[in-house]
This record gives sequence, C-alpha cells and structure tokens, in this order.
Amino acid sequence: MNGNFTPSYIARCATLAMALEVSGTPKPGNIDRDHDYANTKYEDFLASAIGVYPILEKACTEGGIGRLMLEASAESVRWQTGGNTHFGAYILLFPLIKAAARGPPGQLRAGAIDMVKETTVDDAVDFYRAFSMVEVRMKKPEDLAADDRGLDVSGTGSLEELGRRGVTMFDIMQISSKNDMVAREWVEGFRRSFKAADMVREKRRTGTMNDATVLTYLEMLAEEPDTFIAKKYDMDKAVYVQGLALDVIERRMTLKELSSRLYIEKINPGSTADLMIAGLFIALIGGMRV
Amino acid sequence: MNGNFTPSYIARCATLAMALEVSGTPKPGNIDRDHDYANTKYEDFLASAIGVYPILEKACTEGGIGRLMLEASAESVRWQTGGNTHFGAYILLFPLIKAAARGPPGQLRAGAIDMVKETTVDDAVDFYRAFSMVEVRMKKPEDLAADDRGLDVSGTGSLEELGRRGVTMFDIMQISSKNDMVAREWVEGFRRSFKAADMVREKRRTGTMNDATVLTYLEMLAEEPDTFIAKKYDMDKAVYVQGLALDVIERRMTLKELSSRLYIEKINPGSTADLMIAGLFIALIGGMRV
Repeated sequence: MNGNFTPSYIARCATLAMALEVSGTPKPGNIDRDHDYANTKYEDFLASAIGVYPILEKACTEGGIGRLMLEASAESVRWQTGGNTHFGAYILLFPLIKAAARGPPGQLRAGAIDMVKETTVDDAVDFYRAFSMVEVRMKKPEDLAADDRGLDVSGTGSLEELGRRGVTMFDIMQISSKNDMVAREWVEGFRRSFKAADMVREKRRTGTMNDATVLTYLEMLAEEPDTFIAKKYDMDKAVYVQGLALDVIERRMTLKELSSRLYIEKINPGSTADLMIAGLFIALIGGMRV
Repeated sequence: MNGNFTPSYIARCATLAMALEVSGTPKPGNIDRDHDYANTKYEDFLASAIGVYPILEKACTEGGIGRLMLEASAESVRWQTGGNTHFGAYILLFPLIKAAARGPPGQLRAGAIDMVKETTVDDAVDFYRAFSMVEVRMKKPEDLAADDRGLDVSGTGSLEELGRRGVTMFDIMQISSKNDMVAREWVEGFRRSFKAADMVREKRRTGTMNDATVLTYLEMLAEEPDTFIAKKYDMDKAVYVQGLALDVIERRMTLKELSSRLYIEKINPGSTADLMIAGLFIALIGGMRV
C-alpha cells in the first residue's frame, strides 16, 4: 500500500487480525480453532470479528474511542452468544485504527500515542458504559488506591464522578496501567504491541502464519505475567504461567503439555491475546500476508 | 432484522458464511480449520473471505455479476497466496447478495432467480475473464458439445465469440449445468442452496454450529455426486465419494475414516463446499446465529 490507507483496508486488517489471533493453535489456555470454552466457542470469535466490521470502518472517519467501544461491544453480541470476546482488543485497536486512517503510514505509532492522549471525559464515560455492559474483569475495587475508588465501574456514582473530576479515558488507562497490561499500552506508547508486530512479521518470513502467531504469543507470555490471569486469580498464578511459557521456549516442556495444562486448570492469558491482536493488526497494515 | 437488509449486514453474512464453511471440521477432503493443502491453507480462506468484503458490499448497490466476480477474484489474491479459494462460491453468492439487497426479505429465492436471468453478454465476458484469471476447472473443452466449443475459456477467440453470439452469463451456466452443480443452481433456482440452508438451520437448533455445518455438508455429499470431483477425476470417482458419504450417514464408516481417506486420496468435493457457503449465507441472512 502506498499513500494513506483506506477505511475499508484498515477495517479488513483489524477483522483479519482478530480472526488470525483466535485461529492460532495451540495458543495455550485461550480459545483457538481447536479449543472452545463451555460458554464461548471459536465461532463466536469469528462472528464477532466479522460482525463489528462497520464499527472498525467507522472509526477511521468518526467517533470517539469510548463511543466506538460501546458500539463495538453492542454489535459483537448481535452476532454471537459467547459474550465478551474482544473488549480488551478494542482498547488497542481503536487508537491504532484511527492513527492508520490519519496517516502517514510510517507514523502509526506516533499517531496512536496522539490518539490516546486526545481522549476526553466523554470517552471515559462511554468506556465505562461499555465496560459495565460486557462485565469484563478490568480491575477490582480493592486493587485501586483509596483515592481512586470513585472510578470503580461497579460504583453507582462512577459516571457523574468522572465528569466532576474531569477524568479522561487516558486517565483511566493510566490508573489501570499498574494492574493491566492492555491499559499499560496506552501509557507506554504501544510498546509491546509493536514488539509483537515485529516478532510476528519476522517469524512469518520463515514459518507459517500459524507458527508465527503461536510462537509470538508464547514469547509474549514468557516476557511478562499476563494481567488477565492476575486479576482472575492472582499475580502468583500469572508468574507461574510466565515461567511455564519460558519452560516451553527453553525446551523443558512441550507446547502441547503447556496447552493441556492451562486448559485443564482453566487459565486463559486473555491480555496477551489482546496484545497479539494489536501486533497482528500492525503487521497486516504494514503489508504482512497470511 | 426487519425491513430490507443493509449492504453491510448482507456483506457480513456473506463473509461469515465463507468463514464458517471453511472452519467446519472434519469436512472430508476439503480444507478446514485442521486441514491445509500443500499450497493453500486454512488462513488463505479466512483472509480471502475478509479481503473481498468491499466487493460483497458493493454488490448490494452496483456492478454486474460478471464484473463483481472479476473484482472479487482479483481482490482475493491480494490478501493471500493460496490461489483460487472462493470462485465457485461467488457464482452463488453474488445473485443471492443482490436479491437480499433488493428485498423484500421473504423473497430471497425469487429475487436470486430474477438476478441470474438478468445477466448480460458483458457479464459473460467478465465471467470468462475472471475464470481465466483463477484457472479453476470449470469445464474441459471435451465435455462440451461440438457446437459449444467456441465457449471454451482457453480458446483465444472466446470473448469475441460470446458477443457475436449474444451469449449471457445465464446461458453459460445453462450450458455448464450438465456437468457443474454450481452452474446448475442458476438453472434450477438455487434449489440445493436453499435446501442446505434449511438443513443447517435445523441442525443448528439442536447442535453446535460446527456439527450443523459438517452434517449438512455430509448429507449434501451423499445426495448428489460432487461435480468438482467429476471434473478433476471422473464421474465414477464422484459417485464413489457419494457412496462413502452415505456409508458414514448409515453408520458403516466413521466420519474420521472418510475424512482420512479423502485427504490421503486428494479428493476434495469443492462444489459441495460452494453450495454450503450459499446455504450458510441464506441461513445467516435469515437470522441464524453461530
């Protein structure tokens, strides 16, 4: 692609990124083409990735990031019955999509950093509405400092509180970044998303698309404890999984063993999967092909 | 959905139909989420299904069916390197998409029948251009009656010949219908596509999306010999596969055995897969969810 990307091109890259991420197998612990959960299955992720296409395309030309998250979360469940599939991914995709649409192509990262800093109180309000709707475990009230308790999404006064205090969506991500690696991407300039993109591109040069996805996911998992696991269980569990991923990389355990173990123990590194989607999107926008 | 369908809704149903069809596993002999071929892999089908989205959406408001096939075939290979993935499916999808867009919702079949009858000489010319581009085995010259040899796509004079003789795309499908079950759908009013839709909807009521896709495919395969197999090998081989599918349905062979055998023998019932995509599209448009 030369020149700026078209909205349709950008939206297709985002949909395909979500489809490729969920297809990568075995991607230990997470839903993939060969692993469903009891209430959410592989097809739910495919349907959601395709179903939200118009919101991804719309994001190129209009809509605040918070509002887009609300619309995407609502549209997703019109296409499937597995509940929340891509909430964390939207947090990363929408700023990246907007940056890709604004161009120039070489400035994707700088553009995404600008986009998140431009978020407003309205974005924060819409984000929280989307968040309540999908009921993802973003943070528990007890994880927040006393001063920040008013921002807990379960608190009935939260939305008014945001406006009163002038809290933007960027501020929320800053507050959440300590315990959430997806939020941390906003604060750290999408550092690991772009790293994942470099890894997946590099691995795709010498291997299959599936290998590239799975091996990048594994390295990402070995690099930092997954905060989705930390919030669902605790940090010890997240560090334990990080260690197991390193065991696979250093050939002390097979990928298959790790995969079986995480599915049996119901440990799903969901935030690492969100980063993978961002990485795949960046690589696809840059011209990587399946 | 009430009232007429939006172009975006229709295009998403078509993309999702292609994604669900290729995901259904084990779908004996064809590429699925667990079976690649040497030169074409599962991800190529996903990328193609998502990559052609803008052409599917455009079909709702403009473009002849032949021209749309040309554009979709060209766009597909910009997204993947596996070659022809969905040529046969486009033959069924574009009339159905146009009928869905024209509405009313309850008149999909009547609308599709109208659409194919309205095709022109220009559609025929564009169809043949698309056909040459993807080099699918639509028919061999020796399969055609002497009178029809001028229509063989490999003949250098074909395109001028079409114009001179006033042959429309519907005429081509009529000529091809004896040896091609996809072309036959145009002549027989999409009979088996709608039958597949009924089957998949019915099976989805009591089973998973994957079961519904696989079992419908199996019943379709047992019902009529697949003409893609007949053209790649011969009619005996197609009838042999039809018999094996019946063996699975009547519990004389397992689905797994049939699947292994067809992959080993490199027999892919490609036309049955095309009908499945049409059936899935019809079911999704009608409100079936994954």
